Amino acid sequence: MKLNIAVLAGDGIGPEVTAQSIKVLNAIAETYSHSFEFREALVGAIAIDKTGNPLPEETLDICENSDAVLFGAIGDPKYDNDPSAKVRPEQGLLRLRKSLGLFTNIRPVKAYPTLIDKSPLKESIISGTDFTIYRELTGGIYFGDKKLNDAGTVASDLCKYSEKEIERIAHLAFKAARSRRKKLTLVDKANVLETSRLWRRVVSNVGKSYEDVELDYLFVDNAAMQIILNPKQFDVILTENMFGDIISDEASVIGGSIGLLASASIGNENALFEPIHGSYPQAKGKDIANPIASILSAAMLLEHFGLKEEAQAINEAVEKSLSLNIVTTDLDPESAFGTQKIGDFIADYIVNAE
Amino acid sequence: MKLNIAVLAGDGIGPEVTAQSIKVLNAIAETYSHSFEFREALVGAIAIDKTGNPLPEETLDICENSDAVLFGAIGDPKYDNDPSAKVRPEQGLLRLRKSLGLFTNIRPVKAYPTLIDKSPLKESIISGTDFTIYRELTGGIYFGDKKLNDAGTVASDLCKYSEKEIERIAHLAFKAARSRRKKLTLVDKANVLETSRLWRRVVSNVGKSYEDVELDYLFVDNAAMQIILNPKQFDVILTENMFGDIISDEASVIGGSIGLLASASIGNENALFEPIHGSYPQAKGKDIANPIASILSAAMLLEHFGLKEEAQAINEAVEKSLSLNIVTTDLDPESAFGTQKIGDFIADYIVNAE
Ligand SMILES: [Mg+2]
Ligand SMILES: [Mg+2]
Repeated sequence: MKLNIAVLAGDGIGPEVTAQSIKVLNAIAETYSHSFEFREALVGAIAIDKTGNPLPEETLDICENSDAVLFGAIGDPKYDNDPSAKVRPEQGLLRLRKSLGLFTNIRPVKAYPTLIDKSPLKESIISGTDFTIYRELTGGIYFGDKKLNDAGTVASDLCKYSEKEIERIAHLAFKAARSRRKKLTLVDKANVLETSRLWRRVVSNVGKSYEDVELDYLFVDNAAMQIILNPKQFDVILTENMFGDIISDEASVIGGSIGLLASASIGNENALFEPIHGSYPQAKGKDIANPIASILSAAMLLEHFGLKEEAQAINEAVEKSLSLNIVTTDLDPESAFGTQKIGDFIADYIVNAE
Repeated sequence: MKLNIAVLAGDGIGPEVTAQSIKVLNAIAETYSHSFEFREALVGAIAIDKTGNPLPEETLDICENSDAVLFGAIGDPKYDNDPSAKVRPEQGLLRLRKSLGLFTNIRPVKAYPTLIDKSPLKESIISGTDFTIYRELTGGIYFGDKKLNDAGTVASDLCKYSEKEIERIAHLAFKAARSRRKKLTLVDKANVLETSRLWRRVVSNVGKSYEDVELDYLFVDNAAMQIILNPKQFDVILTENMFGDIISDEASVIGGSIGLLASASIGNENALFEPIHGSYPQAKGKDIANPIASILSAAMLLEHFGLKEEAQAINEAVEKSLSLNIVTTDLDPESAFGTQKIGDFIADYIVNAE
């Protein structure tokens, strides 16, 4: 397969972790005879520094003309701590998602056996956890009308959803459930919210085309409990934008390390893959950042294009590195391995395993 | 003291756990020479069944003419699973809170040493946890305009807050923090929502009158993580209605049993006390429901009226029952004690301890 991949490494540790993903993707290309072409482009604070714009036109062009985007991280303290800043690095990612029509965010949550002791939850609770959250990304209250009266004493935010917005992500979530353990849980607040009742009706209708998938419903407050009490019960969780923001961040801590969590944001014509961790500026250039979340986001990229065996090869190499304790110091403070060595090990393992 | 207490036992296990609280309050009245008069009224699914209204006028009258409301639980599967139902049991509680002006919900979250092994979190994470959540209860998206277009294809919910609504709960939360460890954390989403930015401005202003209280801010998605990662960091959490719903339910599971968690909903002229668990319809009538959360909510009622010694007598009797393993099967599957026996033990202990 031939893939054009835009590489938006961004700020902080973004470039160094993304470099490991490219290394790993090159190992896949070599081993499985694919052709991956990478085109780098600016985004975030570095793009502001060089062009004044967190998402330059050229970057957007490159992304629009690529098959997928491999994203690093954005954010820099010099903008975060300047309340008068008119342009902010984060605007780059928000605009990119919007411009590319990336309406679904996908976050796998998995308990890695070797990391269970790092989880705040007990082993009996998390071992075997393996679910994926499908979060709607371009609608709901984050994007609805915002108002403040002239006196500055009354504010409002509108949460709005249409049938179409719900249908398109529902199909993706049902398809994912079908390829997994065939269970889909819609998280909403249908006992109170009109938008949640619309979600429930539309998802239930879409479900009629996926009768092999079991559909159930959970109120968001209950979901926030169940994710801690019994995360193993979930297969695919589908939810609206803000609920997804809250519960996917909640779920991200149960596995023991957010340095391992990847995500995908997909639309009808584009797809973007990124680690969920931020730019972690304190670690920049020190060769200590954990590259695994970025590498696993590259695996999600391959899976998105149907390259299941290749994605699995990356997953296995990652698990091997964890089981051999070839990890960065966030996972083992005594470790002597740095960012690049982890990337080397995983790339070499892929080449030599075949 | 003479208190008129409205008893709204509601659905599912509500009546049987509330009966134990009344037993315990009668033991307090007898022991400490108080006069508690109980007036029962309908609410929830049972009120819909009998009157078509989840909050009949008569119930509201009784509550308005009482000093406090002792509430059980509401909800029935036959309404929950019917998206076309026009009246819902939950509307009874929502309307009651609104009618009585109960604008603040208070939820203590505490790790009981004897129950730490029941927590899904590791002991090192939760031991010593002791915080209280102040949740705004009558504003925000749960009460804002709800719209559905004629075609049924576009829905919306409005989240709205005024300075006044935020100020009154902020004062209560700052006062609570002042009597505790002097730390207040406002949970919001001020990087995205206009209402959250209003919350931040108003709470920061109110905070100027409480300079001995340290005020900090946390985005709700981060809060959902921090409650699991490090619950000990919190003293008083203040937040808007929906965020409070989600994070207080999340926090409720870290202590090991929601069968022990009580709550208060207070306003300027009224106060309502209830266990946080739901109606648990599967357990209804089986004498297996844990009555302790309801009994502890009766203790919160007494404390609200300044009866500290009496509240403490209940707390001690509850801790005695836990330490003697006189508990329901949710806490010890081998236990032979049922709902009524726990209530009997706690009531007897109060009478005999004096
Ligand atoms: Mg988030
Ligand atoms: Mg709730």
